[in-house]
Amino acid sequence: MQFSSALLESAVNEFAKLPGIGKKTALRLVLHLLRMEEGNVQGFGETMIRMRQEIKFCQRCHNVSDSDICSICSNLSRKQEIICVVESLREVIAIESTQQFNGAYHVLGGVISPLDGIGPEQLNIETLVNRVRQEQTQELIFALNPTIQGDTTIYYIQKKLQGWPGRITTIARGIAFGGELEYADEMTLARSITNRLPVESYRSAT
Amino acid sequence: MQFSSALLESAVNEFAKLPGIGKKTALRLVLHLLRMEEGNVQGFGETMIRMRQEIKFCQRCHNVSDSDICSICSNLSRKQEIICVVESLREVIAIESTQQFNGAYHVLGGVISPLDGIGPEQLNIETLVNRVRQEQTQELIFALNPTIQGDTTIYYIQKKLQGWPGRITTIARGIAFGGELEYADEMTLARSITNRLPVESYRSAT
Repeated sequence: MQFSSALLESAVNEFAKLPGIGKKTALRLVLHLLRMEEGNVQGFGETMIRMRQEIKFCQRCHNVSDSDICSICSNLSRKQEIICVVESLREVIAIESTQQFNGAYHVLGGVISPLDGIGPEQLNIETLVNRVRQEQTQELIFALNPTIQGDTTIYYIQKKLQGWPGRITTIARGIAFGGELEYADEMTLARSITNRLPVESYRSAT
Repeated sequence: MQFSSALLESAVNEFAKLPGIGKKTALRLVLHLLRMEEGNVQGFGETMIRMRQEIKFCQRCHNVSDSDICSICSNLSRKQEIICVVESLREVIAIESTQQFNGAYHVLGGVISPLDGIGPEQLNIETLVNRVRQEQTQELIFALNPTIQGDTTIYYIQKKLQGWPGRITTIARGIAFGGELEYADEMTLARSITNRLPVESYRSAT
Protein backbone atom coordinates (compact mmCIF):
# COMPACT_ATOMS: atom_id res chain seq x y z
CA MET A 1 0.00 0.00 0.00
CA GLN A 2 1.15 3.51 -0.85
CA PHE A 3 0.36 6.27 1.64
CA SER A 4 0.66 9.98 1.14
CA SER A 5 1.02 10.54 4.90
CA ALA A 6 3.60 9.05 7.24
CA LEU A 7 1.25 9.58 10.21
CA LEU A 8 -1.46 7.56 8.49
CA GLU A 9 1.02 4.86 7.50
CA SER A 10 2.36 4.40 11.02
CA ALA A 11 -1.17 4.22 12.47
CA VAL A 12 -2.09 1.53 9.92
CA ASN A 13 1.09 -0.38 10.73
CA GLU A 14 0.37 -0.26 14.48
CA PHE A 15 -3.12 -1.70 13.97
CA ALA A 16 -1.82 -4.34 11.57
CA LYS A 17 0.45 -5.69 14.34
CA LEU A 18 -2.63 -6.92 16.22
CA PRO A 19 -3.69 -10.54 15.61
CA GLY A 20 -6.23 -11.12 12.86
CA ILE A 21 -5.95 -7.58 11.52
CA GLY A 22 -4.48 -7.20 8.05
CA LYS A 23 -3.49 -4.02 6.26
CA LYS A 24 -6.91 -3.46 4.69
CA THR A 25 -8.78 -3.84 7.98
CA ALA A 26 -6.18 -1.65 9.68
CA LEU A 27 -6.78 1.07 7.10
CA ARG A 28 -10.54 0.84 7.62
CA LEU A 29 -10.10 1.23 11.38
CA VAL A 30 -7.69 4.17 11.01
CA LEU A 31 -10.05 5.94 8.60
CA HIS A 32 -12.77 5.49 11.20
CA LEU A 33 -10.54 7.07 13.87
CA LEU A 34 -9.90 9.95 11.46
CA ARG A 35 -13.62 10.64 11.26
CA MET A 36 -14.05 10.45 15.05
CA GLU A 37 -13.86 13.47 17.37
CA GLU A 38 -10.32 14.28 18.47
CA GLY A 39 -11.28 13.83 22.12
CA ASN A 40 -12.69 10.37 21.53
CA VAL A 41 -9.54 9.22 19.74
CA GLN A 42 -7.52 10.57 22.66
CA GLY A 43 -9.77 8.57 25.00
CA PHE A 44 -9.19 5.45 22.91
CA GLY A 45 -5.41 5.76 22.97
CA GLU A 46 -5.17 6.72 26.62
CA THR A 47 -7.47 3.88 27.73
CA MET A 48 -5.14 1.34 26.08
CA ILE A 49 -2.00 2.88 27.62
CA ARG A 50 -3.58 3.15 31.06
CA MET A 51 -4.96 -0.39 30.91
CA ARG A 52 -1.52 -1.81 30.13
CA GLN A 53 0.22 0.32 32.77
CA GLU A 54 -2.18 -0.01 35.66
CA ILE A 55 -3.73 -3.44 35.33
CA LYS A 56 -2.66 -5.89 38.01
CA PHE A 57 -2.88 -9.62 38.43
CA CYS A 58 -4.64 -10.97 41.51
CA GLN A 59 -2.02 -12.35 43.92
CA ARG A 60 -4.32 -15.19 44.86
CA CYS A 61 -5.86 -16.41 41.60
CA HIS A 62 -3.74 -14.57 38.95
CA ASN A 63 -6.85 -13.20 37.27
CA VAL A 64 -6.60 -9.62 35.93
CA SER A 65 -7.64 -7.14 38.55
CA ASP A 66 -7.64 -3.44 39.40
CA SER A 67 -6.14 -4.16 42.83
CA ASP A 68 -3.86 -6.73 44.49
CA ILE A 69 -6.78 -9.08 45.21
CA CYS A 70 -9.43 -9.35 42.48
CA SER A 71 -13.13 -8.70 43.00
CA ILE A 72 -13.96 -12.41 42.77
CA CYS A 73 -11.43 -13.42 45.45
CA SER A 74 -12.50 -10.62 47.79
CA ASN A 75 -16.20 -11.42 47.39
CA LEU A 76 -17.14 -13.21 50.61
CA SER A 77 -20.56 -14.28 49.32
CA ARG A 78 -18.77 -16.59 46.84
CA LYS A 79 -17.67 -20.06 47.90
CA GLN A 80 -13.94 -19.50 48.16
CA GLU A 81 -13.40 -23.16 49.04
CA ILE A 82 -14.35 -24.27 45.53
CA ILE A 83 -11.68 -23.40 42.96
CA CYS A 84 -12.21 -23.60 39.21
CA VAL A 85 -8.84 -24.05 37.47
CA VAL A 86 -8.65 -22.40 34.02
CA GLU A 87 -6.04 -21.72 31.40
CA SER A 88 -6.52 -17.97 30.94
CA LEU A 89 -8.80 -15.13 31.89
CA ARG A 90 -10.74 -15.75 28.69
CA GLU A 91 -12.29 -18.80 30.36
CA VAL A 92 -12.98 -16.81 33.55
CA ILE A 93 -15.01 -14.35 31.48
CA ALA A 94 -16.83 -17.18 29.66
CA ILE A 95 -17.75 -18.99 32.89
CA GLU A 96 -18.71 -15.78 34.70
CA SER A 97 -21.03 -14.93 31.82
CA THR A 98 -23.03 -18.12 32.50
CA GLN A 99 -23.76 -16.83 36.03
CA GLN A 100 -23.88 -20.47 37.17
CA PHE A 101 -20.61 -20.69 39.09
CA ASN A 102 -20.29 -19.12 42.51
CA GLY A 103 -16.80 -20.22 43.57
CA ALA A 104 -13.29 -18.83 43.03
CA TYR A 105 -10.83 -19.28 40.16
CA HIS A 106 -7.20 -20.06 39.58
CA VAL A 107 -5.66 -18.93 36.28
CA LEU A 108 -2.77 -21.19 35.26
CA GLY A 109 -1.56 -18.95 32.45
CA GLY A 110 -1.45 -21.88 30.01
CA VAL A 111 -1.12 -25.66 30.05
CA ILE A 112 1.93 -27.91 30.19
CA SER A 113 3.24 -28.26 26.63
CA PRO A 114 6.85 -29.45 26.38
CA LEU A 115 6.86 -28.97 22.58
CA ASP A 116 6.20 -25.25 23.08
CA GLY A 117 8.74 -25.10 25.91
CA ILE A 118 6.06 -24.65 28.58
CA GLY A 119 6.79 -26.67 31.69
CA PRO A 120 5.10 -26.57 35.10
CA GLU A 121 7.52 -23.82 36.28
CA GLN A 122 6.20 -21.35 33.69
CA LEU A 123 2.64 -21.81 34.97
CA ASN A 124 0.91 -20.80 38.20
CA ILE A 125 0.88 -24.38 39.47
CA GLU A 126 2.98 -23.96 42.62
CA THR A 127 0.76 -21.17 43.89
CA LEU A 128 -2.28 -23.39 43.24
CA VAL A 129 -0.81 -26.31 45.21
CA ASN A 130 0.16 -24.03 48.10
CA ARG A 131 -3.23 -22.35 48.03
CA VAL A 132 -5.13 -25.64 48.10
CA ARG A 133 -3.08 -26.91 51.04
CA GLN A 134 -3.19 -23.67 53.05
CA GLU A 135 -6.81 -22.65 52.49
CA GLN A 136 -9.81 -24.77 53.42
CA THR A 137 -10.28 -25.80 49.78
CA GLN A 138 -12.88 -28.52 49.31
CA GLU A 139 -12.99 -28.98 45.56
CA LEU A 140 -10.89 -28.30 42.46
CA ILE A 141 -12.86 -28.13 39.21
CA PHE A 142 -10.67 -28.35 36.10
CA ALA A 143 -12.12 -26.37 33.19
CA LEU A 144 -9.30 -26.90 30.70
CA ASN A 145 -9.63 -27.50 26.99
CA PRO A 146 -9.86 -31.25 26.17
CA THR A 147 -6.40 -31.62 24.64
CA ILE A 148 -3.47 -33.87 25.51
CA GLN A 149 -1.79 -30.82 27.05
CA GLY A 150 -4.85 -30.11 29.19
CA ASP A 151 -5.03 -33.73 30.36
CA THR A 152 -1.30 -33.76 31.12
CA THR A 153 -1.72 -30.63 33.23
CA ILE A 154 -4.60 -32.17 35.20
CA TYR A 155 -2.54 -35.33 35.76
CA TYR A 156 0.50 -33.33 36.91
CA ILE A 157 -1.47 -31.25 39.40
CA GLN A 158 -3.32 -34.33 40.67
CA LYS A 159 0.05 -36.00 41.36
CA LYS A 160 1.30 -32.88 43.19
CA LEU A 161 -1.81 -32.93 45.39
CA GLN A 162 -1.46 -36.58 46.39
CA GLY A 163 -2.79 -37.06 49.92
CA TRP A 164 -4.96 -33.92 49.81
CA PRO A 165 -8.45 -34.98 50.91
CA GLY A 166 -10.52 -32.66 48.69
CA ARG A 167 -12.51 -33.53 45.58
CA ILE A 168 -11.01 -33.13 42.10
CA THR A 169 -13.49 -32.87 39.20
CA THR A 170 -13.54 -31.78 35.60
CA ILE A 171 -16.32 -30.08 33.68
CA ALA A 172 -18.66 -32.39 31.77
CA ARG A 173 -18.00 -33.19 28.14
CA GLY A 174 -20.90 -34.16 25.95
CA ILE A 175 -23.20 -33.13 23.15
CA ALA A 176 -23.75 -29.38 23.21
CA PHE A 177 -27.27 -27.99 23.59
CA GLY A 178 -28.65 -27.60 20.09
CA GLY A 179 -25.98 -29.97 18.75
CA GLU A 180 -27.07 -32.89 16.64
CA LEU A 181 -26.01 -36.42 17.59
CA GLU A 182 -25.44 -37.32 13.96
CA TYR A 183 -22.71 -34.71 13.53
CA ALA A 184 -20.96 -35.11 16.88
CA ASP A 185 -17.44 -36.55 16.78
CA GLU A 186 -17.04 -40.12 18.03
CA MET A 187 -14.95 -39.17 21.04
CA THR A 188 -17.55 -36.72 22.35
CA LEU A 189 -20.42 -39.10 21.66
CA ALA A 190 -18.59 -41.99 23.35
CA ARG A 191 -17.82 -39.86 26.42
CA SER A 192 -21.39 -38.61 26.62
CA ILE A 193 -22.63 -42.20 26.71
CA THR A 194 -20.07 -43.30 29.29
CA ASN A 195 -20.89 -40.35 31.52
CA ARG A 196 -24.65 -40.61 31.08
CA LEU A 197 -26.83 -38.99 33.73
CA PRO A 198 -30.10 -40.02 35.40
CA VAL A 199 -32.94 -38.20 33.64
CA GLU A 200 -33.96 -36.37 36.83
CA SER A 201 -30.60 -34.58 37.18
CA TYR A 202 -30.77 -33.65 33.50
CA ARG A 203 -34.22 -32.11 33.97
CA SER A 204 -33.18 -30.09 36.99
CA ALA A 205 -30.17 -28.68 35.16
CA THR A 206 -32.21 -27.28 32.26
CA MET B 1 -19.61 -10.35 29.36
CA GLN B 2 -18.53 -10.14 32.97
CA PHE B 3 -15.14 -8.55 33.72
CA SER B 4 -13.23 -8.62 36.97
CA SER B 5 -11.36 -5.44 36.04
CA ALA B 6 -12.82 -2.06 35.11
CA LEU B 7 -9.64 -1.17 33.19
CA LEU B 8 -10.02 -4.28 31.05
CA GLU B 9 -13.69 -3.63 30.51
CA SER B 10 -13.18 -0.05 29.33
CA ALA B 11 -10.42 -1.13 26.95
CA VAL B 12 -12.70 -3.79 25.46
CA ASN B 13 -15.50 -1.27 25.12
CA GLU B 14 -13.24 1.22 23.34
CA PHE B 15 -12.18 -1.39 20.79
CA ALA B 16 -15.76 -2.58 20.31
CA LYS B 17 -16.72 0.95 19.17
CA LEU B 18 -14.69 0.46 16.00
CA PRO B 19 -16.57 -0.82 12.93
CA GLY B 20 -16.64 -4.59 12.43
CA ILE B 21 -15.21 -5.32 15.88
CA GLY B 22 -17.53 -7.11 18.30
CA LYS B 23 -17.00 -7.76 22.00
CA LYS B 24 -15.24 -11.10 21.48
CA THR B 25 -12.78 -9.72 18.93
CA ALA B 26 -12.23 -6.67 21.16
CA LEU B 27 -11.37 -8.94 24.07
CA ARG B 28 -8.92 -10.89 21.92
CA LEU B 29 -7.20 -7.66 20.88
CA VAL B 30 -7.05 -6.33 24.44
CA LEU B 31 -5.58 -9.62 25.72
CA HIS B 32 -2.95 -9.29 23.02
CA LEU B 33 -2.12 -5.75 24.20
CA LEU B 34 -1.85 -7.13 27.75
CA ARG B 35 0.83 -9.57 26.60
CA MET B 36 2.73 -6.86 24.70
CA GLU B 37 5.59 -4.83 26.19
CA GLU B 38 4.38 -1.74 28.03
CA GLY B 39 6.44 0.51 25.72
CA ASN B 40 4.87 -0.99 22.61
CA VAL B 41 1.35 -0.45 23.92
CA GLN B 42 2.29 3.14 24.72
CA GLY B 43 3.56 3.48 21.15
CA PHE B 44 0.26 2.09 19.85
CA GLY B 45 -1.88 4.51 21.84
CA GLU B 46 0.28 7.55 21.18
CA THR B 47 0.46 6.85 17.44
CA MET B 48 -3.34 6.93 17.23
CA ILE B 49 -3.63 10.14 19.27
CA ARG B 50 -0.85 11.85 17.31
CA MET B 51 -2.26 10.73 13.96
CA ARG B 52 -5.66 12.22 14.78
CA GLN B 53 -4.20 15.46 16.16
CA GLU B 54 -1.54 16.21 13.59
CA ILE B 55 -2.84 14.85 10.31
CA LYS B 56 -3.74 17.51 7.77
CA PHE B 57 -5.71 17.57 4.55
CA CYS B 58 -3.98 18.80 1.42
CA GLN B 59 -5.34 22.25 0.52
CA ARG B 60 -5.21 21.41 -3.14
CA CYS B 61 -6.57 17.86 -3.47
CA HIS B 62 -8.02 17.20 0.06
CA ASN B 63 -6.01 14.02 0.42
CA VAL B 64 -4.58 13.29 3.88
CA SER B 65 -1.15 14.76 4.27
CA ASP B 66 1.54 15.58 6.80
CA SER B 67 1.79 19.16 5.49
CA ASP B 68 -0.44 21.79 3.83
CA ILE B 69 0.25 20.40 0.37
CA CYS B 70 0.46 16.60 0.07
CA SER B 71 3.42 14.69 -1.35
CA ILE B 72 1.52 13.85 -4.54
CA CYS B 73 0.57 17.47 -5.29
CA SER B 74 4.09 18.72 -4.56
CA ASN B 75 5.73 16.06 -6.72
CA LEU B 76 6.72 17.90 -9.92
CA SER B 77 7.56 14.70 -11.79
CA ARG B 78 3.85 13.79 -11.75
CA LYS B 79 1.50 15.15 -14.42
CA GLN B 80 -0.34 17.73 -12.35
CA GLU B 81 -2.54 18.61 -15.36
CA ILE B 82 -4.31 15.21 -15.19
CA ILE B 83 -6.65 14.96 -12.19
CA CYS B 84 -8.22 11.72 -11.01
CA VAL B 85 -11.43 12.46 -9.09
CA VAL B 86 -12.15 9.98 -6.27
CA GLU B 87 -14.59 9.63 -3.42
CA SER B 88 -12.17 9.11 -0.54
CA LEU B 89 -8.53 8.54 0.24
CA ARG B 90 -9.20 4.81 0.17
CA GLU B 91 -9.36 5.01 -3.63
CA VAL B 92 -6.20 7.13 -3.72
CA ILE B 93 -4.37 4.36 -1.87
CA ALA B 94 -5.85 1.67 -4.17
CA ILE B 95 -4.89 3.53 -7.36
CA GLU B 96 -1.44 4.46 -6.05
CA SER B 97 -0.82 0.80 -5.26
CA THR B 98 -1.24 -0.06 -8.96
CA GLN B 99 1.69 2.29 -9.75
CA GLN B 100 0.03 2.94 -13.12
CA PHE B 101 -1.23 6.48 -12.59
CA ASN B 102 1.18 9.39 -12.64
CA GLY B 103 -1.19 12.35 -12.31
CA ALA B 104 -2.77 14.21 -9.40
CA TYR B 105 -5.94 13.50 -7.40
CA HIS B 106 -8.98 15.31 -6.10
CA VAL B 107 -10.77 13.76 -3.12
CA LEU B 108 -14.47 14.70 -3.13
CA GLY B 109 -15.16 13.35 0.35
CA GLY B 110 -18.23 11.42 -0.84
CA VAL B 111 -20.76 11.50 -3.68
CA ILE B 112 -23.99 13.45 -4.09
CA SER B 113 -26.71 11.51 -2.26
CA PRO B 114 -29.83 13.54 -1.42
CA LEU B 115 -31.35 10.61 0.54
CA ASP B 116 -28.38 10.75 2.94
CA GLY B 117 -28.52 14.53 3.05
CA ILE B 118 -25.31 14.94 1.07
CA GLY B 119 -25.53 17.74 -1.49
CA PRO B 120 -22.79 19.32 -3.61
CA GLU B 121 -22.04 21.87 -0.85
CA GLN B 122 -20.91 19.13 1.54
CA LEU B 123 -18.37 17.87 -0.99
CA ASN B 124 -15.12 19.31 -2.34
CA ILE B 125 -16.73 20.12 -5.69
CA GLU B 126 -16.30 23.90 -5.72
CA THR B 127 -12.56 23.60 -5.08
CA LEU B 128 -12.37 21.10 -7.95
CA VAL B 129 -14.17 23.42 -10.37
CA ASN B 130 -11.97 26.37 -9.36
CA ARG B 131 -8.86 24.24 -9.57
CA VAL B 132 -9.69 22.97 -13.06
CA ARG B 133 -10.37 26.49 -14.33
CA GLN B 134 -7.33 28.12 -12.70
CA GLU B 135 -4.70 25.46 -13.34
CA GLN B 136 -3.71 24.19 -16.77
CA THR B 137 -5.78 21.04 -16.26
CA GLN B 138 -6.08 18.91 -19.40
CA GLU B 139 -8.08 15.91 -18.25
CA LEU B 140 -10.43 14.87 -15.46
CA ILE B 141 -10.64 11.11 -14.85
CA PHE B 142 -13.60 10.08 -12.73
CA ALA B 143 -12.84 6.98 -10.62
CA LEU B 144 -16.13 6.82 -8.69
CA ASN B 145 -18.05 3.71 -7.76
CA PRO B 146 -20.63 2.77 -10.44
CA THR B 147 -23.75 3.76 -8.50
CA ILE B 148 -26.55 6.19 -9.28
CA GLN B 149 -24.97 8.57 -6.76
CA GLY B 150 -21.62 8.32 -8.52
CA ASP B 151 -23.19 8.95 -11.91
CA THR B 152 -25.17 11.91 -10.53
CA THR B 153 -21.97 13.40 -9.16
CA ILE B 154 -20.20 13.04 -12.52
CA TYR B 155 -23.16 14.64 -14.28
CA TYR B 156 -23.28 17.55 -11.78
CA ILE B 157 -19.55 18.32 -12.11
CA GLN B 158 -19.73 18.01 -15.90
CA LYS B 159 -22.53 20.61 -15.92
CA LYS B 160 -20.51 22.93 -13.70
CA LEU B 161 -17.56 22.67 -16.07
CA GLN B 162 -19.57 23.52 -19.21
CA GLY B 163 -17.37 25.35 -21.67
CA TRP B 164 -14.13 24.06 -20.18
CA PRO B 165 -12.09 22.67 -23.09
CA GLY B 166 -10.43 19.73 -21.29
CA ARG B 167 -11.21 16.03 -21.58
CA ILE B 168 -13.53 14.30 -19.14
CA THR B 169 -13.21 10.52 -18.86
CA THR B 170 -14.21 7.74 -16.52
CA ILE B 171 -12.33 4.56 -15.68
CA ALA B 172 -13.24 1.50 -17.77
CA ARG B 173 -15.92 -0.89 -16.55
CA GLY B 174 -15.79 -4.44 -17.72
CA ILE B 175 -15.07 -8.02 -16.83
CA ALA B 176 -12.31 -8.19 -14.23
CA PHE B 177 -9.11 -10.08 -14.97
CA GLY B 178 -9.65 -13.66 -13.89
CA GLY B 179 -13.42 -13.05 -13.86
CA GLU B 180 -15.64 -15.49 -15.72
CA LEU B 181 -18.07 -14.22 -18.33
CA GLU B 182 -20.73 -16.68 -17.21
CA TYR B 183 -20.95 -15.20 -13.72
CA ALA B 184 -20.66 -11.51 -14.65
CA ASP B 185 -23.79 -9.43 -14.00
CA GLU B 186 -25.71 -8.34 -17.10
CA MET B 187 -24.95 -4.63 -16.65
CA THR B 188 -21.20 -5.19 -16.54
CA LEU B 189 -21.29 -7.62 -19.46
CA ALA B 190 -23.44 -5.25 -21.52
CA ARG B 191 -21.10 -2.33 -20.82
CA SER B 192 -18.04 -4.38 -21.63
CA ILE B 193 -19.53 -5.21 -25.05
CA THR B 194 -20.58 -1.64 -25.78
CA ASN B 195 -17.14 -0.33 -24.82
CA ARG B 196 -15.22 -3.04 -26.63
CA LEU B 197 -11.63 -2.31 -27.56
CA PRO B 198 -9.52 -3.12 -30.59
CA VAL B 199 -7.45 -6.21 -29.81
CA GLU B 200 -4.17 -4.27 -30.26
CA SER B 201 -4.93 -1.85 -27.44
CA TYR B 202 -5.97 -4.77 -25.22
CA ARG B 203 -2.64 -6.48 -25.88
CA SER B 204 -0.58 -3.40 -25.15
CA ALA B 205 -2.39 -2.93 -21.87
CA THR B 206 -1.59 -6.37 -20.51
